[in-house]
Amino acid sequence: MTKKLIYLDHAATTPVDSEVVKAMQPYFLEKYGNPSSIYSLGREAKQALEVAREKAAKILNCQPEQIIFTGSGTESDNQAIIGAALANQARGRHIITSLIEHHAVLHACEFLESQGFEVTYLPVSKEGLVDLTELKNAIRPETILVSLIWANNEIGTVQPISEIAKIIKEKNSETFFHTDACQAAGFFDLDVQELGVDLLTLNGSKIYGPKGTGLLYVKKGLPIASIIHGGAQEGGKRAGTENVPGIIGLVKALELVQNNREEENQRLIGLRDKLIEGLLNIPKVILNGHPTKRLPNNVNVTIADVEGEAMLLHLDQQGICVSTGSACTSGSLEPSHVILALGQSFDLAHGSLRFSLGKANTQEDIDYVLEVFPEIIEKLRRMSPVNLAIN
Amino acid sequence: MTKKLIYLDHAATTPVDSEVVKAMQPYFLEKYGNPSSIYSLGREAKQALEVAREKAAKILNCQPEQIIFTGSGTESDNQAIIGAALANQARGRHIITSLIEHHAVLHACEFLESQGFEVTYLPVSKEGLVDLTELKNAIRPETILVSLIWANNEIGTVQPISEIAKIIKEKNSETFFHTDACQAAGFFDLDVQELGVDLLTLNGSKIYGPKGTGLLYVKKGLPIASIIHGGAQEGGKRAGTENVPGIIGLVKALELVQNNREEENQRLIGLRDKLIEGLLNIPKVILNGHPTKRLPNNVNVTIADVEGEAMLLHLDQQGICVSTGSACTSGSLEPSHVILALGQSFDLAHGSLRFSLGKANTQEDIDYVLEVFPEIIEKLRRMSPVNLAIN
Repeated sequence: MTKKLIYLDHAATTPVDSEVVKAMQPYFLEKYGNPSSIYSLGREAKQALEVAREKAAKILNCQPEQIIFTGSGTESDNQAIIGAALANQARGRHIITSLIEHHAVLHACEFLESQGFEVTYLPVSKEGLVDLTELKNAIRPETILVSLIWANNEIGTVQPISEIAKIIKEKNSETFFHTDACQAAGFFDLDVQELGVDLLTLNGSKIYGPKGTGLLYVKKGLPIASIIHGGAQEGGKRAGTENVPGIIGLVKALELVQNNREEENQRLIGLRDKLIEGLLNIPKVILNGHPTKRLPNNVNVTIADVEGEAMLLHLDQQGICVSTGSACTSGSLEPSHVILALGQSFDLAHGSLRFSLGKANTQEDIDYVLEVFPEIIEKLRRMSPVNLAIN
Repeated sequence: MTKKLIYLDHAATTPVDSEVVKAMQPYFLEKYGNPSSIYSLGREAKQALEVAREKAAKILNCQPEQIIFTGSGTESDNQAIIGAALANQARGRHIITSLIEHHAVLHACEFLESQGFEVTYLPVSKEGLVDLTELKNAIRPETILVSLIWANNEIGTVQPISEIAKIIKEKNSETFFHTDACQAAGFFDLDVQELGVDLLTLNGSKIYGPKGTGLLYVKKGLPIASIIHGGAQEGGKRAGTENVPGIIGLVKALELVQNNREEENQRLIGLRDKLIEGLLNIPKVILNGHPTKRLPNNVNVTIADVEGEAMLLHLDQQGICVSTGSACTSGSLEPSHVILALGQSFDLAHGSLRFSLGKANTQEDIDYVLEVFPEIIEKLRRMSPVNLAIN
């Protein structure tokens, strides 16, 4: 008997929706033209691409030409940050971000620092919220860009994006605002006008779409440099033959999650809170992130006196997939930079674990986790020499 | 009755092989784990990725860790050129390329010029061959990189890569050599040791693999900077969740074309030469590129007194897909920079047309083209006021 797989790592990546696979299929085998080709097979691909762009634009409440399709969320983050910085450096070389960004943002910022830019890394509260007074104080005349993650990929804390946009614009109307919405895209209204953002990143692999796909919204008139140079695709902003099946899949996935998000959010919040409640019943367990301003699918806890990786591997043996932090940095011995930014000690942070729920998860899955997990913790704690204080 | 499609634009993009689609399929729906995740579903994805890397390494006769998977041929070209330039600029800031490169290479070089690098653009012979004496003379102590396209994407001329590698290393053993092998990958032995290259680019969409996939070979010890910053994927050299299905598909496609290339090359050369012969029987038609040192699937002709785009659209009406040049620059009114580099006049260059054959093409396809095309040319020439000299 094969054990049922309980996948609780949707923040790392999602399975591709079968409707998405179906939508992509014809573009591999039959409608394979290069959208830049002007014969009918090429025009057909071009049209499919433009229809997809219009659908995405409708969801984002923007113009189709304000959307750039890229190869990943990471690439979108890079193009937003490096592209906007390089194109606007004559106005200033100061950028603001936070300590709890995804590495795609942090390392893009570090690259810019190596090029002479100055970056302010905003601290966050114990719940992972950016201090808005600190933000306001950090904005200067030479601040060209603020980049803040909408919903954190590890702890799920949701920043008040439209409020932040107002603060930025009031202090410096010429400061652009980018948000990484990769984790938020499945759950929230992506209306960029309401949000007040100038740049917005999302990707396929977190919303039941294909890996290797990303999208960047760029407000009209915002000067942005390419980071991949070549052909004139994507309005001259991102070179390379368009990944037509991938783009079709990304947009289909976006439509599917957006169409169903309110109902699904309620369902997930129910499961999430049940899981949080159960976990907090275990001694010396604390919730990371904000109790209510958090993603409907995110549960992140620190469990004292236990190694995150050990718990993960024991859960894996029970068919439960969870994560110790961002998948992008697993394998590293460093504890999560996000958990550390919340003020947790190095030792405690090693015991953090993320459960991220998705549409296949059921009440039974949560019950099963709450059945097997306390035993795992107890077993590991018996083996552990450590006994940490927790608050 | 739907007209049979005769696709003769394989240099623009190829249909995806049904075996490739089949190989990708499980990685969308079932084996969807993030390769950076350490539970079994993630390890399974990681293993599939590493098996693919080993297969590719075997074909390239290199070590698996010398392969970086990217999001396109364009991205690979960019990482090779910009990445190597940025990482090696302390040794020198001079780069050599040619006038007939793909725009992915030319525009990456132009970006570097904007950053203070110096780029030498080598001229080519009337047949599109780089002058090796000019190359040798251009190499200086501060030359850190030479980038030359192996088989030109428009005219199909094949450069003697291993001979070029020897010339470069003899003149300056510290000059790195990159070749864009996107068009060559389906037809030639990709043994990087035999070739003597330090960097080699290829992609999926030209070899019956998926769009949105690329590969870059980087010789061991060659310092190279990332152009996309973030997670530690691909040995820390290319950030972003790995496109597992795409990579599996790319490598499957590479295996398929490589396994069958000698037989298929002979077949294509037969069709190609038949097509060339037939086209040259039409008055005022010349072959572009080298008569023998050319891709087995490439036919590029200039047809005097006719506009390339008009021919293309008339052929499209007969179900025949061809191109006026690189798909990446179609839509532009400029004639091909490659044809101009051969020394053709601006007016003549406007009448160039590329036929690029593929595995589905048959003798009947060629016969059909040679049946309908002369009539199209005659008709267009009757409508044209122009009468150009040709030699």
